[in-house]
Amino acid sequence: MASSLLHCSDKLPFMDVETILHMKEGLGETSYAQNSSLQKRGMDTLKSLITNAATDVYISQTPERFTVADLGCSSGPNALCLVEAIVGSIGRVCGRRSSQPPPEFSVLLNDLPTNDFNTIFFSLPEFTDRLKAAAGTGEWGRPMVFLSGVPGSFYGRLFPRRSVHFICSCSSLHWLSQVPPGLFDEAGGPVNKGKMYISSTSPPAVPLAYLRQFQRDFGLFLKSRAAEVVPGGRMVLAMLGRQTEGYIDRRTTFLWELLSESLAALVSQGLVEQEKVDAYNVPFYAPSIGEVEEEVRREGSFRLDYVQTYEISLSSSGDAKEDGRTVSMAIRAIQESMLSHHFGPDVVDALFHRYTELVTESMEREEVKSVQIGVVLTRL
Amino acid sequence: MASSLLHCSDKLPFMDVETILHMKEGLGETSYAQNSSLQKRGMDTLKSLITNAATDVYISQTPERFTVADLGCSSGPNALCLVEAIVGSIGRVCGRRSSQPPPEFSVLLNDLPTNDFNTIFFSLPEFTDRLKAAAGTGEWGRPMVFLSGVPGSFYGRLFPRRSVHFICSCSSLHWLSQVPPGLFDEAGGPVNKGKMYISSTSPPAVPLAYLRQFQRDFGLFLKSRAAEVVPGGRMVLAMLGRQTEGYIDRRTTFLWELLSESLAALVSQGLVEQEKVDAYNVPFYAPSIGEVEEEVRREGSFRLDYVQTYEISLSSSGDAKEDGRTVSMAIRAIQESMLSHHFGPDVVDALFHRYTELVTESMEREEVKSVQIGVVLTRL
Repeated sequence: MASSLLHCSDKLPFMDVETILHMKEGLGETSYAQNSSLQKRGMDTLKSLITNAATDVYISQTPERFTVADLGCSSGPNALCLVEAIVGSIGRVCGRRSSQPPPEFSVLLNDLPTNDFNTIFFSLPEFTDRLKAAAGTGEWGRPMVFLSGVPGSFYGRLFPRRSVHFICSCSSLHWLSQVPPGLFDEAGGPVNKGKMYISSTSPPAVPLAYLRQFQRDFGLFLKSRAAEVVPGGRMVLAMLGRQTEGYIDRRTTFLWELLSESLAALVSQGLVEQEKVDAYNVPFYAPSIGEVEEEVRREGSFRLDYVQTYEISLSSSGDAKEDGRTVSMAIRAIQESMLSHHFGPDVVDALFHRYTELVTESMEREEVKSVQIGVVLTRL
Repeated sequence: MASSLLHCSDKLPFMDVETILHMKEGLGETSYAQNSSLQKRGMDTLKSLITNAATDVYISQTPERFTVADLGCSSGPNALCLVEAIVGSIGRVCGRRSSQPPPEFSVLLNDLPTNDFNTIFFSLPEFTDRLKAAAGTGEWGRPMVFLSGVPGSFYGRLFPRRSVHFICSCSSLHWLSQVPPGLFDEAGGPVNKGKMYISSTSPPAVPLAYLRQFQRDFGLFLKSRAAEVVPGGRMVLAMLGRQTEGYIDRRTTFLWELLSESLAALVSQGLVEQEKVDAYNVPFYAPSIGEVEEEVRREGSFRLDYVQTYEISLSSSGDAKEDGRTVSMAIRAIQESMLSHHFGPDVVDALFHRYTELVTESMEREEVKSVQIGVVLTRL
């Protein structure tokens, strides 16, 4: 991997998110595969929304080949969970209609090129068997399912023109294509000192820089998908978001605040330089419903059928110690690639040791929740 | 990975080729990526055949989306080399015809699910840039290229019906889907003792078992592709083969003979059991032109436009020691996964130490060549 904390032509510290950000690969203790139960919970909330939307598209178009894409599929068990539900649901519809042969399914799993696709593919033979079984057997036999991995950033084109019937994306669109350039002043100095995301102490330039980046990225996402989705095709998108129009929704900023606090602890122990902390920002943005609606309207190719926020409790077991560890490990699996790139791999264990303590203390005091936005869009 | 040298219901020692066979992953010293220059040489011989056939299909059909698949792409630099040539060639044709916008390219890279797709995908950003540059810029701008990885065995369906315009497959179809069951007698005892492939001392049942497996596999390959390739679409296939109708073509059996000899050396040193050697056979078959023609005729969906054998010298540098090492490392990258599964990983270094000596000695005595069959087929 190329060195990527480099000063680019406009003198801003630049982190190439596309080559650095990835969920922790493999199946080990700190892997995303082992630490994505929170994302799974987010998915489950939206599963029926997703399968209903996909089945509606199939019924209205009944194509011979039904193409479904999961954007930001990552590499754990979640990667295959949504497409499995979709294929199963449409397969059962066809099973009930004896006049109708099931379509051939083309399943496109997308994530950044650095995603661990090998781990998904290793589990493919079992997955295909499960998929066919879930779809049941009509008089036409079991549906054919063709799966492929599509590496690339969804902030750009991924698939040929008018080639996809249904798209879903869960827990991915809150990741921006880059750390917003506006987080550094003209001399390249950091403006969000001591914090890694929008905080109540951040100067106004900070939320504005994040919003601008979100608008640019989400606009590009919609424009790219508009080219790829067939007329009448749909997308179900879910991402972390806010229930407030103001930039601070504690349920969104809270876990980043604690991670900044953990870094501050490492600074006071002399393990990390304050300058490094000042220059670190996450390429993340949790939009409000209004901000999502505005971009959909501005781009103009999709009709907004549905938008809703959901609260998801992060206290899954009720035991603060266990829940604290689960949340900490989840954030580690998501953030390790970037933290390790910026601060060096040696500090990661110490950082998450402190982070687990802080998260656990908070969960002992209160129920910690996150907010998710779910959106259904139809291609005009 | 599941244990796979197990006795299945019909009491035959069974190796699940689909989950075990893969070219050595990664980019290290013994990786396929670093040791596939021989396969590259085979490809280069056929490159103009491949680009001409693909360009002909494009010109006769001028689809908006041109879909090309490489079957058995593996994971080294070779993986992207053929599709790069194809996209470049068609892109230049479009560049010369100002009336014609270039197609969108859909590039499907296939190999078994255990193939190292991650290594291909990591290099994708550079590849996409190179691809677009090679295609040049016409008045319509650079062509869009969409790449995906398709894990699965090509002895079965991989893609939706009538979805592919052009298929190429180099150095892959000589790999069978399994070790032929006929290499074990009714009691499960090995019939090809001391050898791992057809040898002059093998009983007649051995070549027959290999031929039957090839016929079944290649027939299934053709039937699967017949469903996927559009009428008028083409395939260029290249595999190791024989220039003789008899089963022994020394240029094909030679390297396996030396590997059997190397195993025999390990037996005499007490490092490997003779029984293990007797039970080891490679899932490989080098067909003759006549055998390929017969399966194409029998399956009936493709017209055979062209078939030819080529000799490729394995003495690339002229220095026997260097060439011996190159060949030995190439065979190791191909065979390590299976040998290590059957004999245990500890013997692999010693085995290839002896093998390198034997190959080098042979190359000091004579020019060692291999034979490749190239075939062009058109979907009727």
